[in-house]
Amino acid sequence: MQRLSVNGERLWDTLMETARFGGTPGGGITRLPLSDADRQARDWFVDACAAMGCSIAIDEMGNIFARLAGRDSSLPPISFGSHLDTQLAGGKFDGTAGVLSGLEVLRTLDGAGYHPNAPLELINWTAEEGCRFPPLLGSGVFAGAYALDWAYASRDPEGVTFLQELERIGYRGPWTAGHKLGAYLELHIEQGPVLEMENKTIGVVVGARGQLWYDVVIKGTQGHAGTTPMAMRRDAMTMFTRLANETYALAWDYAPDGLATIGQVAVSPNSRNVVPGSVAFTIDLRHADKPLLHQMDEELSRRVEKLSAGSGFDVRLTKFWTVEPMQFDARCVTAVRHAAEQCGYSHMDIVTGPGHDALQVARVAPTSMIFIPCEHGVSHNEAERVSPEQMTAGANVLLDAVLELDRGQGR
Amino acid sequence: MQRLSVNGERLWDTLMETARFGGTPGGGITRLPLSDADRQARDWFVDACAAMGCSIAIDEMGNIFARLAGRDSSLPPISFGSHLDTQLAGGKFDGTAGVLSGLEVLRTLDGAGYHPNAPLELINWTAEEGCRFPPLLGSGVFAGAYALDWAYASRDPEGVTFLQELERIGYRGPWTAGHKLGAYLELHIEQGPVLEMENKTIGVVVGARGQLWYDVVIKGTQGHAGTTPMAMRRDAMTMFTRLANETYALAWDYAPDGLATIGQVAVSPNSRNVVPGSVAFTIDLRHADKPLLHQMDEELSRRVEKLSAGSGFDVRLTKFWTVEPMQFDARCVTAVRHAAEQCGYSHMDIVTGPGHDALQVARVAPTSMIFIPCEHGVSHNEAERVSPEQMTAGANVLLDAVLELDRGQGR
Repeated sequence: MQRLSVNGERLWDTLMETARFGGTPGGGITRLPLSDADRQARDWFVDACAAMGCSIAIDEMGNIFARLAGRDSSLPPISFGSHLDTQLAGGKFDGTAGVLSGLEVLRTLDGAGYHPNAPLELINWTAEEGCRFPPLLGSGVFAGAYALDWAYASRDPEGVTFLQELERIGYRGPWTAGHKLGAYLELHIEQGPVLEMENKTIGVVVGARGQLWYDVVIKGTQGHAGTTPMAMRRDAMTMFTRLANETYALAWDYAPDGLATIGQVAVSPNSRNVVPGSVAFTIDLRHADKPLLHQMDEELSRRVEKLSAGSGFDVRLTKFWTVEPMQFDARCVTAVRHAAEQCGYSHMDIVTGPGHDALQVARVAPTSMIFIPCEHGVSHNEAERVSPEQMTAGANVLLDAVLELDRGQGR
Repeated sequence: MQRLSVNGERLWDTLMETARFGGTPGGGITRLPLSDADRQARDWFVDACAAMGCSIAIDEMGNIFARLAGRDSSLPPISFGSHLDTQLAGGKFDGTAGVLSGLEVLRTLDGAGYHPNAPLELINWTAEEGCRFPPLLGSGVFAGAYALDWAYASRDPEGVTFLQELERIGYRGPWTAGHKLGAYLELHIEQGPVLEMENKTIGVVVGARGQLWYDVVIKGTQGHAGTTPMAMRRDAMTMFTRLANETYALAWDYAPDGLATIGQVAVSPNSRNVVPGSVAFTIDLRHADKPLLHQMDEELSRRVEKLSAGSGFDVRLTKFWTVEPMQFDARCVTAVRHAAEQCGYSHMDIVTGPGHDALQVARVAPTSMIFIPCEHGVSHNEAERVSPEQMTAGANVLLDAVLELDRGQGR
């Protein structure tokens, strides 16, 4: 059988054409979840899928499932997709690239008269972006991570509930969320600089980084900057710089996968000529490997304890948030890697930092993701940029990976 | 001749008695410059001095000069004093200790029928505290550091001018500010922890620390805390901790006199899961020795330059404020040191960090200061504490130093 390839030009035109739904003068998109612009994009999407003869189903969360029939309708579908909603003044690719690549995959197969073994199902998840309601809401309820009632009762900053808006735009469907999927793939822009800096076309997403969030408070002794000799000070800022350096050293000990960020610092009294009496700051630790992330956690406590013991400073380290690392399904990851190889694209294994619908779906179905580079790693921004060639490459990998998974279903 | 000593009990009673002018429920004093409480304290002070037969002069800045006649009225006076005004919710000793010790010195000499060679002059300076008008205003105009018109036109936070308030409380005197002084001594609480920690009764103040103020801005690259590997980050916070450590190392290289304080830090965007794109912070460097302070300045620029060159960070170091170190008059310093030795008090040389009227007067007259310890170095606070014994010791040193300087006049 001849190798199929997507029509890159058609994909690009579709991306540019649909960018008008919520399009901003700055070249981005403001298509908040369940907004009128979201409805317009959804309506267009449903029409485009229906035009190919896809069956359309909408579940109680407004998630849209466009299905191309397979030879065996009793098989669970090979699914793929992402989200059409965007951040306020977001870009043209975050989410949309995944949905429209999926559409291009269906169009290519439909045009070639290809008959899959299992149904192929293109999904548009509802309310992925957390800019209006809590993030990952559609896929979260689908995967059983969130209760339907809780999602329905969520309110936007204006006080309007998710359910009100879902009904207003006409996308409260009859399906119970959570049908069985044979597999799930999601193409997404990387939203980081790694692929670009490593000059790779495709990121084979093997899992998601876990994260640990800490608050740290250092109490020393406030003093006059002009009277207290260095040796008599308990300057909380000096302890902060020691703890910060130790935190960075820890991340480097776990490089390249371990990450440490100190993003917030609050100094008291924060006056130019007063020796700081206290410094409060945050630590964000990440790692893709669960045992190693927990080792980092223990190591951080140990190092903080070692530096603060007998120092005269009162140091409180509080961990208050844990997201466990996740490993994607080996068969799905292999399908993506094979696809990149088959297509002859340079590729590398990568983990995702940001959350994606795929991380929710992975709770209930074999899942992986395909990353394509975005310029300078910029996203959630009108300046988000992907080249047509990168887009085409990603869609071709999605196509090949879907076909490999479908062939697996047929065996 | 028999050694004279002050009456420590009388001094302490006077301190406690006058603390009622502006006294706070918390045991401190709120006696803002030119307030009604300041007028009450001034009125009491003038009466107490006049009762001894002192002549009272008030200059155009409201500075009060209470003079005990000497054998030779053509000699410039041996002067000493401090200020009766306080911070908002300040303590009972900052300033007041110096004025009332001076009063006790005059009372002791008057009681003993002692006749000095030169006139002895007790001074209450106007508006030392900067909590209402600019600081050191009375002594500043006296020493020619500030123009009279500028001082008169200064406004408090309510918009009332210094001159309006000076006239309102009846202390705009006829004297032109700035008559010649033979010497000036000022007793003051240390407002730092050194004497207490070194267990010394008297600080022989040999000079004042100079200070340099800098603003530093580091620009790196903002990024997602979950996507950017450590090696690809330009995390402004990591550069901050390196620069901060280098700044502290610099101060330690100049220990014990060199001081470095990083009192203010501003992180952008200051979000827990965002790699900081920029960090702005302040540096306060101090040293009592002029050449060494300037060496610290050059050294700081060199070290910042070395750390930032080729680092990929844009680092801007801006020096915007310089106060040169000051050395007090050798003869006055020696008089204080001799006095402490004569009285048998433990003592050490020390430099002042905070500003004092003595630093203004030192521009135009031989000057030194006497420091006494205050508990934990706390001042500008109702909890400011000095023991009766420490107070008595300070006043005895002031007495002896005044007499030594007066004997020098007589030679």
